[in-house]
Amino acid sequence: MNTIIVKTPVTRHLGELFSKNGLSKKTVVLFDENTRNLFGSELLDLLTEQGFQWLDLVVPAKETSKSFNTANKLYGKMILADVDRSWNLLAVGGGVVGDLGGFIAASYYRGIPIIQLPTTLLAMTDSSIGGKVAINHPLGKNLIGFFHLPRLVLIDPAYLKTLPMREIHAGMAEVVKYGFIADRDFLFRLDRHFSEIIALEEPFVTDAIRRSAEIKSDVVEKDFREESGLRATLNFGHTFAHGLEKLADYRYLRHGEAVTIGMVCALSLSHGLGYLNREELDQGVRILRKFRFPHGLVQRRFLGESSESLLEYMLSDKKKLDRKLRFVLLKSLGSAFLLEETVEDHHVLKAITEAKELFKKALAC
Amino acid sequence: MNTIIVKTPVTRHLGELFSKNGLSKKTVVLFDENTRNLFGSELLDLLTEQGFQWLDLVVPAKETSKSFNTANKLYGKMILADVDRSWNLLAVGGGVVGDLGGFIAASYYRGIPIIQLPTTLLAMTDSSIGGKVAINHPLGKNLIGFFHLPRLVLIDPAYLKTLPMREIHAGMAEVVKYGFIADRDFLFRLDRHFSEIIALEEPFVTDAIRRSAEIKSDVVEKDFREESGLRATLNFGHTFAHGLEKLADYRYLRHGEAVTIGMVCALSLSHGLGYLNREELDQGVRILRKFRFPHGLVQRRFLGESSESLLEYMLSDKKKLDRKLRFVLLKSLGSAFLLEETVEDHHVLKAITEAKELFKKALAC
Repeated sequence: MNTIIVKTPVTRHLGELFSKNGLSKKTVVLFDENTRNLFGSELLDLLTEQGFQWLDLVVPAKETSKSFNTANKLYGKMILADVDRSWNLLAVGGGVVGDLGGFIAASYYRGIPIIQLPTTLLAMTDSSIGGKVAINHPLGKNLIGFFHLPRLVLIDPAYLKTLPMREIHAGMAEVVKYGFIADRDFLFRLDRHFSEIIALEEPFVTDAIRRSAEIKSDVVEKDFREESGLRATLNFGHTFAHGLEKLADYRYLRHGEAVTIGMVCALSLSHGLGYLNREELDQGVRILRKFRFPHGLVQRRFLGESSESLLEYMLSDKKKLDRKLRFVLLKSLGSAFLLEETVEDHHVLKAITEAKELFKKALAC
Repeated sequence: MNTIIVKTPVTRHLGELFSKNGLSKKTVVLFDENTRNLFGSELLDLLTEQGFQWLDLVVPAKETSKSFNTANKLYGKMILADVDRSWNLLAVGGGVVGDLGGFIAASYYRGIPIIQLPTTLLAMTDSSIGGKVAINHPLGKNLIGFFHLPRLVLIDPAYLKTLPMREIHAGMAEVVKYGFIADRDFLFRLDRHFSEIIALEEPFVTDAIRRSAEIKSDVVEKDFREESGLRATLNFGHTFAHGLEKLADYRYLRHGEAVTIGMVCALSLSHGLGYLNREELDQGVRILRKFRFPHGLVQRRFLGESSESLLEYMLSDKKKLDRKLRFVLLKSLGSAFLLEETVEDHHVLKAITEAKELFKKALAC
């Protein structure tokens, strides 16, 4: 499984961390334009000081970098620099760089080790962990990829200080999600220390990240290839969130914002189907509200559309393949499961409508 | 590890074989233009009769099909046909289709099962087994790929009847190689039944293929990621062969022909360095001679060039990376090992010169 190190400043210890984990000091460093500008020179200087041989590569900081064309260009630069199987690849950035770097490392010379150095909250707590790497095909996102576990995930919470506030809030949705699905104590710790975490104060922010990364890693270890249904619980709130993202045509809203709304719906469905009691439903919504509900356009989009139209978008790829929606529900705060049975549409509609009411009521508080 | 089935006619049993091995009856069938023309309609009819849902894809029967562009087009066709993770991929052809099919299966939706149905001797005994899949980069062959084991390798020796004789002879080089590296009895069985095997007579040809596939599979199982040096023994004769292929600019000679000459050189080096006795060296050369030495241009190229120039070509990629040549040697017929120490150039030169003499002497018999 991945070794996860949470440390500030992690880059001063790369030499020692690589050696301890059996990694060579020959590394391809993949940045996006932002991380190259913000941390590039300093990081490369540190690598040189610590005796590394490195090749630095940069891609635009956008989803379109996760393409065959970009991968092919990067392979070419690596071949010309005589990068061989004794090298490894260090990906410095958010989800795009992590996914693309993982894809390249998985496939170059039939696989070289990948080390993740995530710089966004979402990458630190989710995408850098678990070994799902992919690029996009013109016909769909993340369709071409592999399972290629990182040898090392190096998390330095200090990088979060470079992020805009909206990014932090959106990223917190996945952090709170880990509490909901797997750790009640953690959920209430997040609740208690909300203001310190959101202000990136130590040790609270490090605890939040470390525990999230641990939960993700544990779940992945137990169900690497998504066979038992356990890994699927990481998608709590996501069935609703994907519908909302499609409804909004992936504009105006961050993934984390859609997930927050999705979790309100999933809590409501868990209660509606008799799994979660009323008190825990209310507590859950209160915690999500505290970590901030999305506002402005995103909020209006959710509250303004009919429940039927959200369900329609949730179902849109499923219908033509004659597939059913699958839901992750809570039995209690801190304990999720994948529901095997099909949920009838009227239950889903009721849960969405109820979620809107809960959302509005919470906003009014 | 892979399940290998050797059976004639194997295609009449696909339904049962797939079910027994936990594979769904939804399959993408990848052909090259030759296999599509020769066996395509019959195979697809059989699949339909046996209750399969299939999508057939065809690529040109040439090395350039192992490209990103081709892969990308095939992914697109699969996506549009709603192929998902419940499908698998059946590759029908030689090395190109096997490698490309394996690459696509390894990466589509993060991996679907690959089933190999090799139709050339080299694919039956070597490339379809062992899970090395790859495509080419404009800067080099097989640089982008993975280890993705086939779930099933279905070998039907009857397909060999469609191959030209030169192909059979070239393919036999790898068969004889398995005897040299791992099974003395098998080597002498090949020697005894040479004429039946080369005439594709049963049960001799099936024995030759089955035992080759078994040896390959055993070696791969024990050293999947080429860590212990065992998998490297599969490259017996190949260090010399690659030099010869480069010297000839990959024209005029088949891979198997270069390997035959390479094995004469490797036998000679094994003797020169004191590992193999004279009697076994002579026996080894005699067996290779029996399975036919390459003739015409290939032979003239080997005999006509100076030993220095062959060594130069063998060293050509190594020099700039400051790497050494590695040799697989025989301790005795049927027992190979990877030599860890560096071999000095003068030993290699002597082995090549000696191999030419052995080659000429054998030809004269």
